[in-house]
Amino acid sequence: MSRQAEYRLDASRILRPRSVAVIGASEDVGKFGGRVMYYLTKHGFEGRIVPVNPKRETVFGVPCVPHISASGEAVDVALLALPPETLVDAVEDCAKAGVGACIVMTTGFAEAGEEGERRQDELLDIVRRTGMRIVGPNCMGLISPHHRMALTSSLVLETDHLQAGPIGLISQSGALMVSMYNRADDSGIGFSACVSLGNQSDLEICDFLEFLIADEATRAICIYMEGLRDPARFLELADEARRAGKPLLLVKTGRTEAGIAAAKSHTASLAGSYDVFSAACRDHGVVLLDDPDGMIQLAHCLAQWPTPKNGKIAVFSSSGGGAGIGVDRVSEAGLPLARLGEETRAKLREILLPPQANNPIDLGGRTIADPFECASRAYGIMAGDEDVGMLWIVLTTAPFYERTAEVIGKAALASGKPFVFVVTPGSAADGPRRVLRELGCPYFDRVDDCIRVLKGADSYYRFGTRQADRAARPATLPKQVSPLAPARGSNLLTEPEVKDLLERYGIATTGDIVATDAAKAVAAAEKIGFPVVMKAVARGLIHKSDIGAVKLGLGEADAVAAAFAEIEQAVARAAPGILFEGCVVQEMWAPELELILGVKNDPQFGPVVMCGAGGTLVELMDDVVLALAPVSVDRARELLGTLRVSPLFGSFRGRAPLDIDAAAEAMSALSWLAHDHAARIVELDINPLGVGLSGQGVRALDARAVVVPDDARQVAE
Amino acid sequence: MSRQAEYRLDASRILRPRSVAVIGASEDVGKFGGRVMYYLTKHGFEGRIVPVNPKRETVFGVPCVPHISASGEAVDVALLALPPETLVDAVEDCAKAGVGACIVMTTGFAEAGEEGERRQDELLDIVRRTGMRIVGPNCMGLISPHHRMALTSSLVLETDHLQAGPIGLISQSGALMVSMYNRADDSGIGFSACVSLGNQSDLEICDFLEFLIADEATRAICIYMEGLRDPARFLELADEARRAGKPLLLVKTGRTEAGIAAAKSHTASLAGSYDVFSAACRDHGVVLLDDPDGMIQLAHCLAQWPTPKNGKIAVFSSSGGGAGIGVDRVSEAGLPLARLGEETRAKLREILLPPQANNPIDLGGRTIADPFECASRAYGIMAGDEDVGMLWIVLTTAPFYERTAEVIGKAALASGKPFVFVVTPGSAADGPRRVLRELGCPYFDRVDDCIRVLKGADSYYRFGTRQADRAARPATLPKQVSPLAPARGSNLLTEPEVKDLLERYGIATTGDIVATDAAKAVAAAEKIGFPVVMKAVARGLIHKSDIGAVKLGLGEADAVAAAFAEIEQAVARAAPGILFEGCVVQEMWAPELELILGVKNDPQFGPVVMCGAGGTLVELMDDVVLALAPVSVDRARELLGTLRVSPLFGSFRGRAPLDIDAAAEAMSALSWLAHDHAARIVELDINPLGVGLSGQGVRALDARAVVVPDDARQVAE
Repeated sequence: MSRQAEYRLDASRILRPRSVAVIGASEDVGKFGGRVMYYLTKHGFEGRIVPVNPKRETVFGVPCVPHISASGEAVDVALLALPPETLVDAVEDCAKAGVGACIVMTTGFAEAGEEGERRQDELLDIVRRTGMRIVGPNCMGLISPHHRMALTSSLVLETDHLQAGPIGLISQSGALMVSMYNRADDSGIGFSACVSLGNQSDLEICDFLEFLIADEATRAICIYMEGLRDPARFLELADEARRAGKPLLLVKTGRTEAGIAAAKSHTASLAGSYDVFSAACRDHGVVLLDDPDGMIQLAHCLAQWPTPKNGKIAVFSSSGGGAGIGVDRVSEAGLPLARLGEETRAKLREILLPPQANNPIDLGGRTIADPFECASRAYGIMAGDEDVGMLWIVLTTAPFYERTAEVIGKAALASGKPFVFVVTPGSAADGPRRVLRELGCPYFDRVDDCIRVLKGADSYYRFGTRQADRAARPATLPKQVSPLAPARGSNLLTEPEVKDLLERYGIATTGDIVATDAAKAVAAAEKIGFPVVMKAVARGLIHKSDIGAVKLGLGEADAVAAAFAEIEQAVARAAPGILFEGCVVQEMWAPELELILGVKNDPQFGPVVMCGAGGTLVELMDDVVLALAPVSVDRARELLGTLRVSPLFGSFRGRAPLDIDAAAEAMSALSWLAHDHAARIVELDINPLGVGLSGQGVRALDARAVVVPDDARQVAE
Repeated sequence: MSRQAEYRLDASRILRPRSVAVIGASEDVGKFGGRVMYYLTKHGFEGRIVPVNPKRETVFGVPCVPHISASGEAVDVALLALPPETLVDAVEDCAKAGVGACIVMTTGFAEAGEEGERRQDELLDIVRRTGMRIVGPNCMGLISPHHRMALTSSLVLETDHLQAGPIGLISQSGALMVSMYNRADDSGIGFSACVSLGNQSDLEICDFLEFLIADEATRAICIYMEGLRDPARFLELADEARRAGKPLLLVKTGRTEAGIAAAKSHTASLAGSYDVFSAACRDHGVVLLDDPDGMIQLAHCLAQWPTPKNGKIAVFSSSGGGAGIGVDRVSEAGLPLARLGEETRAKLREILLPPQANNPIDLGGRTIADPFECASRAYGIMAGDEDVGMLWIVLTTAPFYERTAEVIGKAALASGKPFVFVVTPGSAADGPRRVLRELGCPYFDRVDDCIRVLKGADSYYRFGTRQADRAARPATLPKQVSPLAPARGSNLLTEPEVKDLLERYGIATTGDIVATDAAKAVAAAEKIGFPVVMKAVARGLIHKSDIGAVKLGLGEADAVAAAFAEIEQAVARAAPGILFEGCVVQEMWAPELELILGVKNDPQFGPVVMCGAGGTLVELMDDVVLALAPVSVDRARELLGTLRVSPLFGSFRGRAPLDIDAAAEAMSALSWLAHDHAARIVELDINPLGVGLSGQGVRALDARAVVVPDDARQVAE
């Protein structure tokens, strides 16, 4: 659906409405319409409130109207939670009354099966006809603390006030939104806006994301996502968030097969492939997390320290046990520990025992009398070391616990470097927690949470200020996209067809020659040079090796002629229905390393290029990188460097380095090929891509492709 | 140090003393001796309390004595936290006064450098001379809730009462002990005993572990460990805990290099190799964790459900978001999700929409009016499915939240199957948390915690009732341990010497023959059959291939003779100081798969056997299993099955299965070899161990060993 000017309200006005109607308002807080009215009035919304209830004069002192049509001046936002059977008519009434947007909390729509899907289509039809917007259905409303507006019935609003802050939150799940809000509120973390979207029938994640990027009160953005409606727009907005210096954090359900099934039944979302989504996020600077509360915790920290820094970690603890757990967990998480310089360590040795005067610092090893002076000085010295990027304070119990927390908290704030506290006791540390909250020091209760925040911050800082990869089309590529070899109704290309295509994109192959009889095969082999490889050319023939349709190491003319006959017979025997088109004769090339290089067309993100370790054993390694096509050669080289087999690219056991430049060029070229032919290519694999020593290049040794058949394409186009 | 009868007090009496003295008792709770006295009297210890203070008549109403010698009847336990300079004399005074055991909180001993080590030796000398026991130094005392006794100064004792429960806790770190105690207390989890050990100068982990295994009030045991004093005793006790049906859980600092350094400086512990420790724990049913609080949480659950069960997980949530996060996290943790049977799903469909009537259950999809009835029935139906082992309830906000928690909690208890709740909101869920606490339902606040508990329970349940591997000595092994070939002052054996040893233990090699001249080499090759491999025999020569001292694929007599000369020259050129003893002639055997099989002598656990993937690429896989020697053939086969390369053992790409039985026999045999020669062998590697097809066996293709030299051994014995 294209966004049209006649739509009545955009996300910004929905989060900042001038007037709000509650359909079915009451004073019974046991009911939805009562709780919403109670929270709306309790938190002091300053716009117009229009309770709709034919049976009452006022609700909580606010004058009622009997029907939305009697609201006088059209209201911006109406909130509904009626049974599904009456909901559609009520929404229609709102549209007629000129309401700008409806927030529909009712469940029983697309997430609930066929009948619900039909009902959701009816809602969408109202949007199309009238221009009124819809948030939901199956959502839990929104909270806009800066405007003292709570439009949800959740009991987490049972607080003194709505805590305003720098975090904008978009959540498909309403239940998780209010849980996140409540947890954050307990820790003194506030929001610029929280909105739950449910089934995203009309307004969707990107509509609100666009608003939050522009919103001045928002300094970090969190999304809980089940499914993405508009992937391309999402990636553009992710880039925009980076440019605006606003960290964008995201938790997505449906990372696993089981999660995909659950997401689909929850808000009727298409969860998509998490691997591809994750690669797209990595390349657009979106920080992916696995836990909603952990996401808010990280946002809280990054809103405080948004400028990219060195992410190396120093551990500072009031006890040796805390210091030990700290460095173990940091190391196990694969995070870098800071190495203190000799000067720093010398300064620390003035106030701490030598074994404790390093990273981690354990204040238990103090050699000066005053514990507070020791804590404060030690923190300052450690934070002052240039190798230290972030500090993690493990605060176990201590005598004069609140003062200890205060002294360390002040030293941490004074240092200017990012930090996070974990407070290890429970209620015994309520005092220190209050102190930290009042100082504005981020603290968490579980080591897991700190590790997640440190890991996320490291990833955010490492992305730095660079922009998403913009691959410029290399001059060596075809200027024009020529049509693919006709597949004659088949959805498979033959190996020579695929290799032709690869050659056109500058990806070297094995100099193949197709021979239609034995004599031509011998001539081809003589031209290529012995020994050669021969394989059947027969569209649709798979598992060629298994049926004897591949012959290796053919060293002389007779062997080639015999091989031709044998292959022809093998195909006739094993696949009598398949047309034998001849044999392809290839150079026999023994590479130093085998990779697999491929592309596939993702239903959400379009063409995706993939590279991984090839060969037998490494199948077990699950060693693959993905990237949206096209990728630049430089980016391809970086990605190859993240493979687990990448140590083999350099000098290894006395062998010279491999031609990884050529591999990166091939990866980039294949990504352009996939980009150019996105409408036709379903998937294409080069397996193996042989890699030679530096200077020897790479060659596609074998290749296959699945395409949209010509006839299907003509129907589709 | 052997345990002698004349030692005055064992762990059980230290945790249940009849009388307690506090050295330096006061009423000033700002001081150590004041806080200890305050907590000791506040919590109602019923034994005799003896405050020691020359300046006071009474402390908190308890009559003082001026000096420990004036205590009258000797006290069981005295608590001291004096400065290190005066501490040793005070401990001596206690010994003279007949005190049973001293708890020494003072720091500045072995953890603090040389002077401290000397001081700690003085303490230990008192123990040896007098038989008085010491807990600490550098500890934080103990808590014995069943006896209303708190012997620590920590502010976490600022509670109404000491909560008794089924968990016994031994912690080297005092700060972490009191943090764990406090967290548990907040969640209604109680302890049978908590003790902190610090430097373990005298009484150590195993002394208290032995007590807790025997203690009737203890149903699960937790240990926070930095270093282990007596590994063999620890493993025996771990077996004993299993037999007693008491889960034994453990967190060890020093899992990583950084952690090892921190542990050493904290309580002066030798952290040891975590890989070996971890293998030992795995084989003795000890559950290893990475987080102290997570350990207590798991103990709480296992104390409730100690009987081994199927560990497959069903997720039950009040919201779709919760259900989605739940299954994603379970799957990502590698835990098994239960598959509900068709009958179960049919029953669920009577009350839930079809998409929600499966694992995970999302109560949002209810089709009957009463939400409580739906929750209760759905839980019962799900828990009744035989594939469901454990249930995980993700409790997001809900209307009538407390009643929802109560209904689900009661259904969960009624089901009899293990379960755990995560409560996702913060303070908004204080009511439901109270309800769950009162019902006795385990709940945690973070998904991470639940995942850790589910993972730990799965591992505990999977170990089941089996006992640690008891390898019976196979009849094929040498009955007597014959001395190793003399190493003539070197610490290296030659390849033929190692292979001789392997052959004696039934591990097949390549039928090597050592030839001292070219003619003998030719004769050997003719006997073995061409082609052959030749390598130099020269003690201490390493990197033989690199210098040209290895020749492969020698196909005829002339080539063998030439190779002998070339190898002799190569050794003379590259290593002129090394004695050339001839060449070994070997069968040339191409295995289907290469493994590496080795043993090393761990300083703590003795001989350890290791097997892993061999070859070039798999070096990158870090694919190794370890086990303490000896291992049985059956256990070896199980361990090989956990390697990442294990899919290659079966039929693979049309190839027949490999001879994994032979590999397991070799692993077991090598473990016996290491066991028999533990005093001599430092490390021995077979690399590669070639594995053939099923029935073809395995062969040690190359091997090396580092031993204790003969002369060193004579000095040592």
